[in-house]
Amino acid sequence: MAKIVQCVPNFSEGRRPEIVEQIVQAIDGASDVRIVDYSLDEDHNRSVVTFLGAPEDIRASAFAGAAAAVDLIDLNTHKGGHPRIGAVDVIPVVPIREMTMPDAVALSYEIGKDIADNLCLPVYFYEKSAVMVHRADLAAVRKGGYEGMKKRGLSGDSEPDLGPSELHPTAGAVVVGARGPLIAFNVNLNTDDVKIARDIAVKIRKSRDAGEAMAGVKALGVYLKSRGIAQVSTNITQPHQTTIYDVYTFVEREARAAGVGVLESELIGGMLEDHLIEAVNAAMNVRGLSEKRILDRWM
Amino acid sequence: MAKIVQCVPNFSEGRRPEIVEQIVQAIDGASDVRIVDYSLDEDHNRSVVTFLGAPEDIRASAFAGAAAAVDLIDLNTHKGGHPRIGAVDVIPVVPIREMTMPDAVALSYEIGKDIADNLCLPVYFYEKSAVMVHRADLAAVRKGGYEGMKKRGLSGDSEPDLGPSELHPTAGAVVVGARGPLIAFNVNLNTDDVKIARDIAVKIRKSRDAGEAMAGVKALGVYLKSRGIAQVSTNITQPHQTTIYDVYTFVEREARAAGVGVLESELIGGMLEDHLIEAVNAAMNVRGLSEKRILDRWM
Repeated sequence: MAKIVQCVPNFSEGRRPEIVEQIVQAIDGASDVRIVDYSLDEDHNRSVVTFLGAPEDIRASAFAGAAAAVDLIDLNTHKGGHPRIGAVDVIPVVPIREMTMPDAVALSYEIGKDIADNLCLPVYFYEKSAVMVHRADLAAVRKGGYEGMKKRGLSGDSEPDLGPSELHPTAGAVVVGARGPLIAFNVNLNTDDVKIARDIAVKIRKSRDAGEAMAGVKALGVYLKSRGIAQVSTNITQPHQTTIYDVYTFVEREARAAGVGVLESELIGGMLEDHLIEAVNAAMNVRGLSEKRILDRWM
Repeated sequence: MAKIVQCVPNFSEGRRPEIVEQIVQAIDGASDVRIVDYSLDEDHNRSVVTFLGAPEDIRASAFAGAAAAVDLIDLNTHKGGHPRIGAVDVIPVVPIREMTMPDAVALSYEIGKDIADNLCLPVYFYEKSAVMVHRADLAAVRKGGYEGMKKRGLSGDSEPDLGPSELHPTAGAVVVGARGPLIAFNVNLNTDDVKIARDIAVKIRKSRDAGEAMAGVKALGVYLKSRGIAQVSTNITQPHQTTIYDVYTFVEREARAAGVGVLESELIGGMLEDHLIEAVNAAMNVRGLSEKRILDRWM
């Protein structure tokens, strides 16, 4: 079995498909990685690319994607509600097979160094790669966004881990780090009332913090202007403990209590077979259902 | 992409693991097939082995499994409620990849001929391989079971398609044929009242026949003596139209209406990834969830 890493960089462009496609082509062309998915989020003017490959391929392709984003995206003209500090905003590196977390951390340091040395971007390491404890949390690193960091400068607390001590004039800075697999899973409501989505997100966080349910689930209520609907947007960071079915039924129940309904749910990027099977088992408790019972796995 | 066939022979032994294991070893040792699963059903004194492989490997292993069953199982001392006519009772052949149904039918004829020529077993072809129209239906072929056929003889309507015109003295006869993929899916109730399971099975069949829901679902209510519970046992023969989630929720709703609950569900053998994803979509309507989003498919 070969080593496999997943990389899911987020780019600050979600409205011009031709730009995102050029970035995807750069990633695809730089090595033998496999592009699982890429999606544009028009509302937040961001995009996420999901790819898999051997560590050395991930290193080459993550760099190529970052380089393309630095070339093609100017943060000074970028608008979008989502917090971001860079053209290539964050580069998560996820160990999938035959890789330990320390292996993934080491790989993230190589990617960060390539970027700092060759693209003149300040680099911050987050999550498992955090060198400074308070940078484990992505929100803390991105605080104030590009505009805030530009105003206050990169000295003191904002001194980057690698690279120049000032923002790149058009591409800002980048956050790089290793983390475990998460599922980006959203539930869309049949209402334009974003307050309902926000209230449900609060309930998810409260349930999580009280240790009742929703372990490891990060949730936000957002308004999707492009579709005129409210969304509960989640990251499931402990997918073995909380499945997409658990999140779906939680949101559905709370939506019903608020007098609205669920339109559909949505997966961003990819997920592991194991986590899909765990969702089915949460819904139906199926004896005998395991990865080895999925015929496709044997072909 | 290579041709892949699934074979799921049913054997008339479900209580002596050592016998079933010898049969599985014969199947495994005869070619390069992959054994996905085998399970013993103590209540019905039957077992099902699921394996995948190239057509020529399936041919060799299906024959080896049948030969082992003829050696090891004596139907004259076999007891079990399930209808059966042979030690190796039925051999379904399922085209999975790069195989048409006619390819699978041709393979089933080769398997049937090997068995008739070398094991002295009468062979009946069913489903897509049926040579006589009325034999498409397995229940029609097995009518009366081993004991009934022994009594009335194999002349006239019971004349086999291949092989001798009399039952093998210990191994009976065998039914062979090609069919589409089906999911063997059971729902166990928290009651010992088999009538409730039978009533639910009737409702499934009525709903199916009325074209309301449960398209392609065959259902029976059975009592599992070994566990003291009632079970709704189904075969989902149109898994693109009716998912395991649809069957589960139908049974759950009817069980609740009858004042009982669902203990768990159960998958026998394997299922295709596509059908798993369709079940998740039936439950949660997930935008973007498709086979290509399952990361394991890329490794």
